[in-house]
Amino acid sequence: MSHPSAPLPLGAVTVTDPFWHAKQELVRTQVIPYQWEALNDRVPGAAPSYVIHNFAAAARQRDRRTAQGAAFKAPTLTNRGFETWPEDSDHPDPDTFYGLVFQDSDLAKFIEAAAYSLAGHPDATLEAEVDAAIDLICSAQLDNGYLCTYYILTGMDQHFTNLEFNHELYCFGHMTEAAVAYHEATGKDALLEAMKRFADYIDSRFGPQEGKLKGYPGHEEAELALVRLHQATGEQRYLDLAKFFLDQRGTDPKYFHLEAERAKAEGYPRAGWDADMAYFQSHEPVREQDEAVGHAVRAGYLYTGMADVARETGDQSLVEACERLWRSIVDRKLYVTGGIGGTVDGEAFSYDYDLPNDLAYSETCAAISLVYFARRMLQLRPRSEYADVMELALYNTVLAGVALDGKSFFYVNPLEVTPEGSAKDSRKRHLKPVRQPWFGCACCPPNLARTVADVASYAWTATDDTLFTHLYVGGQVSAELSGSPVRLDVTANLPWSGEGSAVLHCESGVTGTLAFRLPGWSDADDAALSASAEADGRISREVVDGYVYFTGTWRDGDTVSFDFPMPARVLAANPAVREDTGKVALARGPITFTFEEADNGADLHLLRLDPQALEPGGIAVEPWQGLGKPMVRLRVPVRRLPAAQDAPLYSAYRPQAGQAGQAYAIPYYGWANRGENEMSVWIRA
Amino acid sequence: MSHPSAPLPLGAVTVTDPFWHAKQELVRTQVIPYQWEALNDRVPGAAPSYVIHNFAAAARQRDRRTAQGAAFKAPTLTNRGFETWPEDSDHPDPDTFYGLVFQDSDLAKFIEAAAYSLAGHPDATLEAEVDAAIDLICSAQLDNGYLCTYYILTGMDQHFTNLEFNHELYCFGHMTEAAVAYHEATGKDALLEAMKRFADYIDSRFGPQEGKLKGYPGHEEAELALVRLHQATGEQRYLDLAKFFLDQRGTDPKYFHLEAERAKAEGYPRAGWDADMAYFQSHEPVREQDEAVGHAVRAGYLYTGMADVARETGDQSLVEACERLWRSIVDRKLYVTGGIGGTVDGEAFSYDYDLPNDLAYSETCAAISLVYFARRMLQLRPRSEYADVMELALYNTVLAGVALDGKSFFYVNPLEVTPEGSAKDSRKRHLKPVRQPWFGCACCPPNLARTVADVASYAWTATDDTLFTHLYVGGQVSAELSGSPVRLDVTANLPWSGEGSAVLHCESGVTGTLAFRLPGWSDADDAALSASAEADGRISREVVDGYVYFTGTWRDGDTVSFDFPMPARVLAANPAVREDTGKVALARGPITFTFEEADNGADLHLLRLDPQALEPGGIAVEPWQGLGKPMVRLRVPVRRLPAAQDAPLYSAYRPQAGQAGQAYAIPYYGWANRGENEMSVWIRA
Repeated sequence: MSHPSAPLPLGAVTVTDPFWHAKQELVRTQVIPYQWEALNDRVPGAAPSYVIHNFAAAARQRDRRTAQGAAFKAPTLTNRGFETWPEDSDHPDPDTFYGLVFQDSDLAKFIEAAAYSLAGHPDATLEAEVDAAIDLICSAQLDNGYLCTYYILTGMDQHFTNLEFNHELYCFGHMTEAAVAYHEATGKDALLEAMKRFADYIDSRFGPQEGKLKGYPGHEEAELALVRLHQATGEQRYLDLAKFFLDQRGTDPKYFHLEAERAKAEGYPRAGWDADMAYFQSHEPVREQDEAVGHAVRAGYLYTGMADVARETGDQSLVEACERLWRSIVDRKLYVTGGIGGTVDGEAFSYDYDLPNDLAYSETCAAISLVYFARRMLQLRPRSEYADVMELALYNTVLAGVALDGKSFFYVNPLEVTPEGSAKDSRKRHLKPVRQPWFGCACCPPNLARTVADVASYAWTATDDTLFTHLYVGGQVSAELSGSPVRLDVTANLPWSGEGSAVLHCESGVTGTLAFRLPGWSDADDAALSASAEADGRISREVVDGYVYFTGTWRDGDTVSFDFPMPARVLAANPAVREDTGKVALARGPITFTFEEADNGADLHLLRLDPQALEPGGIAVEPWQGLGKPMVRLRVPVRRLPAAQDAPLYSAYRPQAGQAGQAYAIPYYGWANRGENEMSVWIRA
Repeated sequence: MSHPSAPLPLGAVTVTDPFWHAKQELVRTQVIPYQWEALNDRVPGAAPSYVIHNFAAAARQRDRRTAQGAAFKAPTLTNRGFETWPEDSDHPDPDTFYGLVFQDSDLAKFIEAAAYSLAGHPDATLEAEVDAAIDLICSAQLDNGYLCTYYILTGMDQHFTNLEFNHELYCFGHMTEAAVAYHEATGKDALLEAMKRFADYIDSRFGPQEGKLKGYPGHEEAELALVRLHQATGEQRYLDLAKFFLDQRGTDPKYFHLEAERAKAEGYPRAGWDADMAYFQSHEPVREQDEAVGHAVRAGYLYTGMADVARETGDQSLVEACERLWRSIVDRKLYVTGGIGGTVDGEAFSYDYDLPNDLAYSETCAAISLVYFARRMLQLRPRSEYADVMELALYNTVLAGVALDGKSFFYVNPLEVTPEGSAKDSRKRHLKPVRQPWFGCACCPPNLARTVADVASYAWTATDDTLFTHLYVGGQVSAELSGSPVRLDVTANLPWSGEGSAVLHCESGVTGTLAFRLPGWSDADDAALSASAEADGRISREVVDGYVYFTGTWRDGDTVSFDFPMPARVLAANPAVREDTGKVALARGPITFTFEEADNGADLHLLRLDPQALEPGGIAVEPWQGLGKPMVRLRVPVRRLPAAQDAPLYSAYRPQAGQAGQAYAIPYYGWANRGENEMSVWIRA
């Protein structure tokens, strides 16, 4: 049980779960096609992305280079900005880079999502689109392997001089993840070969050796991607490079300060802003960090990379740092929706227990990064808390990122919204009361697509002799147990019911362990799980860190049944969370619920939980189809304080019981699918 | 009763009130000398103001002009910024303008404060300082009357081309108020004559006539100052100009847009930023406005000027607009501390009922502007509500602006502060947990000084036959009643006790009315006031709009006694105020109380009012000297919820009664006099 587990290979799982299958179909049939249109700037009413435009421009430049040979003069522009948009979007210059410096990464995430989707559901049209995109990407690559359209198009003279802000290594990381996934899904290796060449070029420029750059990514991502590339290729240098980036990070003198000084000394312009080193998690060496700080997505990707390198190298000091950072998030900086990053300033973690609801940032990508970090922690050591948090982020904030029709997206996921506040209060201008079609900075939609399409990799991991079920997702799981092929057929009905089973298909006499998580949201002890083969003593059970390990000799048809009670839960925050003092939130199973104006009228702040709700069965659980999909909603006894629109602003306080009634809470991920309206996760107790 | 009243002339009142006399002595002995040092850049550790520097530079330029005659070349700089500070503050260039474009106004407010102080307390040293300052100001004035050091020093070629941002008319207004006050206090007219010449110049450039500018001030203040100049000089043109500015404001096309277009067309630089017209209250004609919007100080000064012009011209449409704007503030946009301006963005009014406590702006100057507006509304029509709000702003937010030792100042007056939030949360960087010594933008300290020094003008106003007591301030008030001189000796002990008397000294047989306000904070009806001469029928009473009018034939020694009960009050906000839902604030008399960590320990959000507090006498009123001054504090039965520092972030909700105990609430104006600590006006009910 103590050596690391790994996700199953792509294609090893067929997701049949009614909930997740529907979400994956939404990604396959709506989100991915929509995103392909968006990358090609063909979505009416959405801001052009210029992603394909940039690659096409870089590929044309390569043609000119080839045609002109030594006569070719590369651009050496000085007007490089963190973002560049055409003055006239109907007539962009065909040879100019547009968008944010990391615009390439949107295409990478799209390809990665497409790869996961193709692995589960072949689709010749999509595969042809991706192949065409990969052709284009490869056409843009420089002979030395460099592949970031921003510098190719604005001039290579200053590449790798602004690691702090310019995201070349971030784009490399995402494209590498895409390359590995696409190779695994289709066997095609054009992109993988291209990214190996880019990795080799980076490796030739960065490292501990004399004369190499001592820098590291301003936006972490390359670290985890290099580990993935190492796993896909077996190449040790890629792992070493990932570790080098981690080892360098936060050492003195700070590399980003040196970069800025050099830019000043040499007089070249530098895109960026005054950000303190904590924004980049480069305020101190990573092994000394014990508080999650700075830009939340950067942080999540860094911690994921740290756990990856820790797992591959056995570096215990990295494991311990990951555990401290995990505790910092989970004990003091996590929303009840699984979101992280409380403040819009720097899209960052705020200080301990500062979790504002109506000013929350809680970026979709940050929740995704938490899912990644949690999966790596699970691989290092199976503890149900890691899976609980992973599940919370996935079912709530990640899924809230996309509309039920797959056509619009949240970047920011507040826990309380009033349309009036979003419209009139400039402090809340980041809080949209409805999802938006596409963003100039479109990191979240494709990130969400790749995560949903790859849900199997979060649900199951395996070691040589143990198959872990972390999330109860219905599906057919092909794996090996002690060298023998097995198939686990899981039937589940999460998140609406906690009942289900896993039937093992195997040759008789396979030995090994099937491990199942005891969900933290269930009060049940391990008796909620039972294996049919326990009766005859073939299989024994052990409970460690919230996992039930069934170990022994299996026969075809052996079944593990589970039945986790799923009562509605009334939650309170730690009293240190000022924003939530005196308030409650509702949850059931992995789902966090929320109140919307559409069900409850306006002025949700006037709702108070009726003490009746705390009695057994006080909150009714109702099947609900109000958003056109099967869901469950909660009917909650409340007291509603009367509004007093014409009353004075201040008057003598009189305790009021409020009018008894019912309110309805719906799954958080489903909010804002009925137009602009008020929403609040927390109501007063 | 229906014609407007006016404040009494400077010097007509000697304030003997223990509370206000002490505050005025603080202003006289601490704040004014400190500010003189600050204006001269001699306060160690405070940012230099460059105020005297700028006038001295302008005066030296005049000397050069005189010496060089036609050969003198005025500067025509193009690098004009909204603020300019020297690169090396130890070596500022002696001929360069530094500071914000409205830096001159700090000296104006200082002179005005000094004038009020000198009227009540002659002081040869102070008067000599002011005379020297006035000499300097007059030396800086141009021959045509123009007097704003910003354009004199940066080049007059573009004066009056950026009314939107460049504050020339604002500085004119403040210096004019200073001139009128100093003339009234000392009889000296050098500054008054200078400001008349500036007013004449402005009048020659602005007006409805062909060829004159059709603009109006970007920061209102000139309007009310011109009315004051009109009253001091009898000159009708000044009133007409004030009315012209009001009539023009908000008409289409917007003057500020025309200015910006002209700057673009002619290619000159323009200090400023993208502000919508509501920021300047120029989004629509003033007579059509019915919601208080935009920068709160600008708004307060505008509304004051509107009420001034309404009073002087009898313009009923202006009266009605003032009444609508008053209701907008008082019914929907006023803090329980008398502060206004809920949002830091634009230092502005937020939308209806949006009154955040921990993000409040509530600028000291904005509360001062509300005091001014309220006094003008009282002059138009005596209604106790106007005086209630004036008193609330004065005793709470205005006085909170200065430390009890007179040496540091709040610009922003939140209703809830945690030092950790102020230090770590960039959304709260405007919220200081302790007062600051001086500000680069130092509008508030001198504004506060002039208001406190002039408290008599808010306490009493008079018509020919009626002397109004709006605020119960102890003092000797000289006035005329139906042409006969009278003196009203008021003894009061506000804000700590509601008991006192007013003894009239006069020749026998004087007829007229003494009117006294029934404070809104007292439950008492008019029986709380009684006149000794009511018994023999010489004096009758009438109650109108919260004022008790005692009318008849007076004899020397006639006494009006008052005894307003002053129980501790537990207040609730209108349920539409989301921030205050389920919370209470405490008040007694005109004082709003607050809870500080120094008295109650940290984690004030864990305090809940114990229902015992609602019983008669449940809240104890205690004399208190804890801050070195006589005050009253409230001992409040509370329940304290336990902290749970090591508990999980989220867990099952369990109702908790909390531990019974006592908390202490102190006057809001006294908070933050014991170092950095938590503070909260509202606690949970």
